[in-house]
Amino acid sequence: MSAPRLSPPAEPVIVPAGTTAGEAVAAAGLTTHGPRAIVVVRDPSDQLRDLEWAPEADTEVEPVTLDSPTGLSVLRHSTAHVLAQAVQDIFPEARLGVGPPIQDGFFYDFDVEKPFQPEDLSRLEKRMQEIVKQGQRFHRHRYASPEEARLDLANEPFKLELVDAKSDVDTDEIMEVGGAELTSYRNLDPKTGEQVWSDLCRGPHLPTTRLIPAFKLMRSAAAYWRGDERNPQLQRIYGTAWPSRDELKAYLKRLEEAERRDHRKLGAELDLFSFPDEIGSGLAVFHPRGGTVRSELESYSRLRHRRAGYQFVNTPHITKENLFTTSGHLPYYADTMYPPIELDGAEYYLKPMNCPFHNLVYRSRGRSYRELPLRLFEFGTVYRYEKSGVVHGLTRVRGLTMDDAHIYCTREQMAGELTSVLQFVLSLLRDYGLDDFFLELSTRDDSPKFIGEDEDWDAATAALSTAAAESGLELVPDPGGAAFYGPKISVQARDAIGRTWQMSTIQVDFNQPKRFGLEYSAANGGREEPVMIHRALFGSIERFFGILTEHYAGAFPAWLAPVQVVGIPVRDDHADYLADFVSTLAERDIRAEVDHSQDRMQKKIRTAQKLKIPFMVIAGDEDVEAGTVSFRYRDGSQRNGVPLDEAVAHVVDFVNSRENSGPSAA
Amino acid sequence: MSAPRLSPPAEPVIVPAGTTAGEAVAAAGLTTHGPRAIVVVRDPSDQLRDLEWAPEADTEVEPVTLDSPTGLSVLRHSTAHVLAQAVQDIFPEARLGVGPPIQDGFFYDFDVEKPFQPEDLSRLEKRMQEIVKQGQRFHRHRYASPEEARLDLANEPFKLELVDAKSDVDTDEIMEVGGAELTSYRNLDPKTGEQVWSDLCRGPHLPTTRLIPAFKLMRSAAAYWRGDERNPQLQRIYGTAWPSRDELKAYLKRLEEAERRDHRKLGAELDLFSFPDEIGSGLAVFHPRGGTVRSELESYSRLRHRRAGYQFVNTPHITKENLFTTSGHLPYYADTMYPPIELDGAEYYLKPMNCPFHNLVYRSRGRSYRELPLRLFEFGTVYRYEKSGVVHGLTRVRGLTMDDAHIYCTREQMAGELTSVLQFVLSLLRDYGLDDFFLELSTRDDSPKFIGEDEDWDAATAALSTAAAESGLELVPDPGGAAFYGPKISVQARDAIGRTWQMSTIQVDFNQPKRFGLEYSAANGGREEPVMIHRALFGSIERFFGILTEHYAGAFPAWLAPVQVVGIPVRDDHADYLADFVSTLAERDIRAEVDHSQDRMQKKIRTAQKLKIPFMVIAGDEDVEAGTVSFRYRDGSQRNGVPLDEAVAHVVDFVNSRENSGPSAA
Repeated sequence: MSAPRLSPPAEPVIVPAGTTAGEAVAAAGLTTHGPRAIVVVRDPSDQLRDLEWAPEADTEVEPVTLDSPTGLSVLRHSTAHVLAQAVQDIFPEARLGVGPPIQDGFFYDFDVEKPFQPEDLSRLEKRMQEIVKQGQRFHRHRYASPEEARLDLANEPFKLELVDAKSDVDTDEIMEVGGAELTSYRNLDPKTGEQVWSDLCRGPHLPTTRLIPAFKLMRSAAAYWRGDERNPQLQRIYGTAWPSRDELKAYLKRLEEAERRDHRKLGAELDLFSFPDEIGSGLAVFHPRGGTVRSELESYSRLRHRRAGYQFVNTPHITKENLFTTSGHLPYYADTMYPPIELDGAEYYLKPMNCPFHNLVYRSRGRSYRELPLRLFEFGTVYRYEKSGVVHGLTRVRGLTMDDAHIYCTREQMAGELTSVLQFVLSLLRDYGLDDFFLELSTRDDSPKFIGEDEDWDAATAALSTAAAESGLELVPDPGGAAFYGPKISVQARDAIGRTWQMSTIQVDFNQPKRFGLEYSAANGGREEPVMIHRALFGSIERFFGILTEHYAGAFPAWLAPVQVVGIPVRDDHADYLADFVSTLAERDIRAEVDHSQDRMQKKIRTAQKLKIPFMVIAGDEDVEAGTVSFRYRDGSQRNGVPLDEAVAHVVDFVNSRENSGPSAA
Repeated sequence: MSAPRLSPPAEPVIVPAGTTAGEAVAAAGLTTHGPRAIVVVRDPSDQLRDLEWAPEADTEVEPVTLDSPTGLSVLRHSTAHVLAQAVQDIFPEARLGVGPPIQDGFFYDFDVEKPFQPEDLSRLEKRMQEIVKQGQRFHRHRYASPEEARLDLANEPFKLELVDAKSDVDTDEIMEVGGAELTSYRNLDPKTGEQVWSDLCRGPHLPTTRLIPAFKLMRSAAAYWRGDERNPQLQRIYGTAWPSRDELKAYLKRLEEAERRDHRKLGAELDLFSFPDEIGSGLAVFHPRGGTVRSELESYSRLRHRRAGYQFVNTPHITKENLFTTSGHLPYYADTMYPPIELDGAEYYLKPMNCPFHNLVYRSRGRSYRELPLRLFEFGTVYRYEKSGVVHGLTRVRGLTMDDAHIYCTREQMAGELTSVLQFVLSLLRDYGLDDFFLELSTRDDSPKFIGEDEDWDAATAALSTAAAESGLELVPDPGGAAFYGPKISVQARDAIGRTWQMSTIQVDFNQPKRFGLEYSAANGGREEPVMIHRALFGSIERFFGILTEHYAGAFPAWLAPVQVVGIPVRDDHADYLADFVSTLAERDIRAEVDHSQDRMQKKIRTAQKLKIPFMVIAGDEDVEAGTVSFRYRDGSQRNGVPLDEAVAHVVDFVNSRENSGPSAA
């Protein structure tokens, strides 16, 4: 939902031997309340430590503020503990699962007799407020042995299981069980110091519950213990927590706005697409309205690609397995592929990638340096077996059409190609109305997994950096994040409500040209291996469609809108007049129709507004007499008495301008 | 290759009891030599009889001329016998397989020690000429019992197998073994009456080998006995035979022309597409040049469909099996489908049809009569498991993209829709340069297999007939040829060399609306079932692409051509001048390039001619000085000294006109 806030990090602080990190932080004059409160510190080995931690020798630590990404995680993790305590206060029979922080919040799983009801969540929030107000201290306890832990947790069967399975558990994921140590966090009464609650946990935590400024429980849902459906079903409560009430409010507002824009909801309301059960999970069907938008999206992309020197190819959706063995996708990528079809003694796979097919086109005849750069483009539909848990609307599907191209060029051409591809991406995305970007540059580190020559990596990385710098956009480095076969740039776009979406990737590949034995005859007559660049600008049409739907909240720009003009007669006998007008527009390839339903005019206007049609064109007696029409736009503004030919030109010009803001009289 | 010749049938003749058909034919004054020679007769039970046949009672028969389709079959079958006799003369150890007539010729299979060589075919042709010249008589012998046949055929193990398997053999297909009778045909010396050769065969045959006017052996190839790869491999010789030497010559000429136009050959020469082994049989890859033509084909079709009121949808390539159970394709159509993918406990199939998906779009919400006709269009890629023996270039593939639409309309709208669809089809095909059509109307007969109401069939058939009549095209009736679920029209097109291709089908469907429970709310408020019309105009893009390639012999119209303009500098230092010209064209979306190779000008012109580029634009010193260019067209004509802006307008106008004949100075 939200991009990480990049507040300035606090200056390092020395914690003298024998004092606590909290004391050192206070001594350094750093604040311990409000959004910039120091809540934990990071030690030189990159471990996070509670403020009650006291090192044995003088230690320089980095204070972590509440409003930093790490601070937010700690806040949310501590709030999850407060929730668990509240649940066991109100439902004493409840047994604990796990309760980690997640994006924008946290959850906690409980074994309870019956699912939580909305009124339960209200009671729990109230009890949590009390715990927060009480200012309970979080105290870390290190168990002397697993036996001590088992004794302490005798009533918590799931926690016992974690103690037993400790070595198997992915500790990063569930943040419950320490690495070398078994620890619990105990909530202590601030007055008496007595333990009021505790939980098996590796921490760290806030020093006190009082540092939880604003939280909310969102909803509850069933969840299997450790995500495995063979395990018992628990009840999960989701919540959120923020460094201030205002930020909580802003978050809830964003959520509401996001829900209003949810492309799955709009997809149904605007009759754009569906996922029929009969076909299967993650496989979208585009209805006429959605199909029209998609067709326009594609046409414009096709035009731009043609003008940018791309050449169009078409390749099948299936292939014998050997192609993916050559490319290296099998067996490495098999988990994400649909299982094979057995035919004529061979195994055929649905393609999850287009690149191996484009390599075959490249290799279909000898290539000369004169042909390079060769830019092969295809709207290639691929199929990927996404786990059913992650399939989500159009943004995470199992069948997706990539606007996929592969560029084959010489080493000398690489820098120029990377720069022009990045310019092309940004220019194209801007034409669809996205204009707030930042870049991520994924490079190698010294891991031995990276293949290819040093000089190639250096040249590609330098070229990508230069291209990024020339774009003038913010660049986030991602060292070590490159694929094993080459560096890449990802373009991230912020949408109308500030959410970040990963869009395009531009990926250099030193691997496939080798695996496919690609070559060209160089100017000097020798044989050279081309550099290969993968790039998809939309990523997938489905995902891009979903993102644009949310970006525009369904009110597509006029050039993309499924229906661009609707004629609304004041009375039925004005319908023919509008029908003529609409035919004139149709002859100019405008998608226009007359609302011939039996509804009254006001209802027709509401219908058109609900369908977010850019141009409502209304005609009554006066218009018919004067040979004019009246425009009503999506923003409610109006232009009356526009002569017919002017009205046609207005619509045609506006649509052809590919202007992304809505038409308006303003 | 050739459409059947429709020569007028001969008048019936009475064969008096005790006389032969040949005598009766001669008595009737019918000719027994030349292309109109009577070669066999058809008896009242539709059986073909040799001229030596003598009925026991007076019988009216229909004489069959050599140049009729049946006569040609008899001619070719007899020529196959002559071939077999020649083979056994020259290769006495050769054992006989089968030797039927086929389209435009015949073949015969032999068990021989080693494959036939081209020089063997020459020797055989020479020996065949001798046999023809000798005028051997074909004489039918009816075996008294299978035992007699076995004795007679003791040296022919394959023939013995046929005698044994008689009841299993598809006699129509191999024309060797009689129905109720076991017969052989014996070649008799015309002077001595002695038997010189014989073959197990059900006939009929020419009266004499002298009636074989013109034949040629074409090629040899390996073939499994009875087409089964578990059986021994035989050597097959293909030949052709015609009623005159001129017709043989014309046929060979057509073959040569067809070979010159073979889209598989042109596909490689012009670098349009390939079928990489790595991917699998029948799965085409379009290279940049082919992909460009295909993209233009599709764009124009998309434009026309949009203007004709079609709405674009997109559906996945796979679905759970249940959808095809609902549609009735499974299990009925399973043989032609790829085997399923097992996933998440379901079976997923690659779609062989788009219609069930479009039905889901129709059914995705309630429909009103106001929305009808609803015309859903998709370039839908489907996969069909064609047997490897029938896969052929682009015209018979396993992966094909249909320009598929389904029209849902009321009963009242059906006639109008059928008429306008047929007009649309013909208009669109004409725009691609096909203009010689005839129609086939497939209707039901009284078989019980046909479902649906009488009045619906009558209305649909009447509507299709009216539409056909309004087109003014020749209409070939095909009674009983309808699908069980409704009547259809097929559009057949003749190409530039007179070959007929089945193109478009327009099919009424009374079945799927029922199976999917499709309905709409009628004007009277009731629920009605829509009529469904299936239609594909290209059939498939792949097949249409193949047909157009052959129709144009690779010289695509300028608007479709992969490269529209090539600049050819007289010397290297004129290249920049042409590069500027080419950029100006590129800005106008013309596909233009400069030949920068090191070849000399004449070689560049030959290359451009080989690639069939519509506009060669040449510039030398004079052109540079005068600000002009010279055009050279595919037909060899030239226009010199054309001012640059005029040259740009000439190319742009010609391309945008979508003129299908080539540009020319003539």
